[in-house]
Amino acid sequence: MSETALNNVRIILVHTSHPGNIGAAARAMKNMGLNRLYLVSPKRYPAEDAVFRAASALDVLDNAVICDSLDEALDGVHWVVGTSARERRIPWPIDDVRSCAGGMQQEIANGREVAVMFGREDRGLTNDELQRCNQHLNIPTSDTYSSLNLAMAVQVVSYELRMAVLQAGDQVAVEQDWDAPWAPADDMERFYGHLEETLVDLDFLKAQAPRQLMTRLRRLFNRQRLDTMELNILRGVLTAAQAAVKRGPKT
Amino acid sequence: MSETALNNVRIILVHTSHPGNIGAAARAMKNMGLNRLYLVSPKRYPAEDAVFRAASALDVLDNAVICDSLDEALDGVHWVVGTSARERRIPWPIDDVRSCAGGMQQEIANGREVAVMFGREDRGLTNDELQRCNQHLNIPTSDTYSSLNLAMAVQVVSYELRMAVLQAGDQVAVEQDWDAPWAPADDMERFYGHLEETLVDLDFLKAQAPRQLMTRLRRLFNRQRLDTMELNILRGVLTAAQAAVKRGPKT
Repeated sequence: MSETALNNVRIILVHTSHPGNIGAAARAMKNMGLNRLYLVSPKRYPAEDAVFRAASALDVLDNAVICDSLDEALDGVHWVVGTSARERRIPWPIDDVRSCAGGMQQEIANGREVAVMFGREDRGLTNDELQRCNQHLNIPTSDTYSSLNLAMAVQVVSYELRMAVLQAGDQVAVEQDWDAPWAPADDMERFYGHLEETLVDLDFLKAQAPRQLMTRLRRLFNRQRLDTMELNILRGVLTAAQAAVKRGPKT
Repeated sequence: MSETALNNVRIILVHTSHPGNIGAAARAMKNMGLNRLYLVSPKRYPAEDAVFRAASALDVLDNAVICDSLDEALDGVHWVVGTSARERRIPWPIDDVRSCAGGMQQEIANGREVAVMFGREDRGLTNDELQRCNQHLNIPTSDTYSSLNLAMAVQVVSYELRMAVLQAGDQVAVEQDWDAPWAPADDMERFYGHLEETLVDLDFLKAQAPRQLMTRLRRLFNRQRLDTMELNILRGVLTAAQAAVKRGPKT
């Protein structure tokens, strides 16, 4: 049964304040067949409230991975989705939860890991956190009251993932034919570091930079996945540009 | 706006034990644009827990209709849906929540009232109560742990109703917006020319190039659309790299 594909989904809760929400999220996950919970610096955890609200999903809590950083939680992930309620200054590709789930289903059916990140109860994800994402996910809500409880959001996302997997059935999703594996998220982070360094070397980042240059570049390269060969090419170009700065004029 | 059709939906909670669930259900409803809550003989209500979990959906609680009997709650309703987890001795038409929501959407769009009934936390709806229903609704859950929290079930049903109404209205659930126009094809061609020239200047194109370097770079940037601001940034970087080659080492 293709339901095992849901084992490739990580639910990442970032800086959660209320442990009750962590427990309720664990239960929502298990009800839908998900089981890999990551907690990035939860404010208060472990806690009785979490255990109480988890009900019979204590195993999900017990197996939760507690991390100090988002890097740790995203290690080995190929496709990162961030939940986003607010309008951002720089728009990012944003999709409703159903179409996001459809895309993630294809990833996990092919054995790649995906992650859905949920932010703080009061403020959601920071801009920096959202910039780690390939895609932003929105749960359509009423204009009158748009602030969903955290565990409820986990419930809706987990439900849509389950539906996507059930609908895909036992069919192996048709894999797009490609000639190189997709680059994982941590390689992308190293690329962004190298890119920024090179732009500084080129005097580009401080001089002619429009505001939020790096944000725009992240948005550009995160909108699609880069394959590992493309990433190698881009890093090769950066290295060549850095060498040119050091080497001086061609003779 | 067709969202007002959601005013024709009643959410009926039958013999609820935990007032926290009533509050959380009210919030879930309001988040999704529903507002008509009916409580049939709640065990403990009103209660502080309900108020706390309702957060900013106090108006839904305040307007909740408290009834002694199901008859009262169903008065004037045209289509009754009951949530059902268990197998019943006598099979009844049962549908998943998405197709139920599709059917209800047609009812409410035509001004008829529908109701979704949710049973007790521990035992659900009785057979008598389920026999009052036109349709039984099931939320697909994992075999490992199928017992959804009551408020979570209200959340999923309300979410599917909202999606059904939005989709019927041809409304895009999430409006995509962007902050710069897309770059036209001829600008993209000039960019590729500039890119190739720069890679030659950097001694990258002939030296370390894998075969079909330019083809790979075209595929990379053409997989998505670039907006004009992104194109300007990339061309600025190329110009800076070319200048670095001419200028020589930084002092």
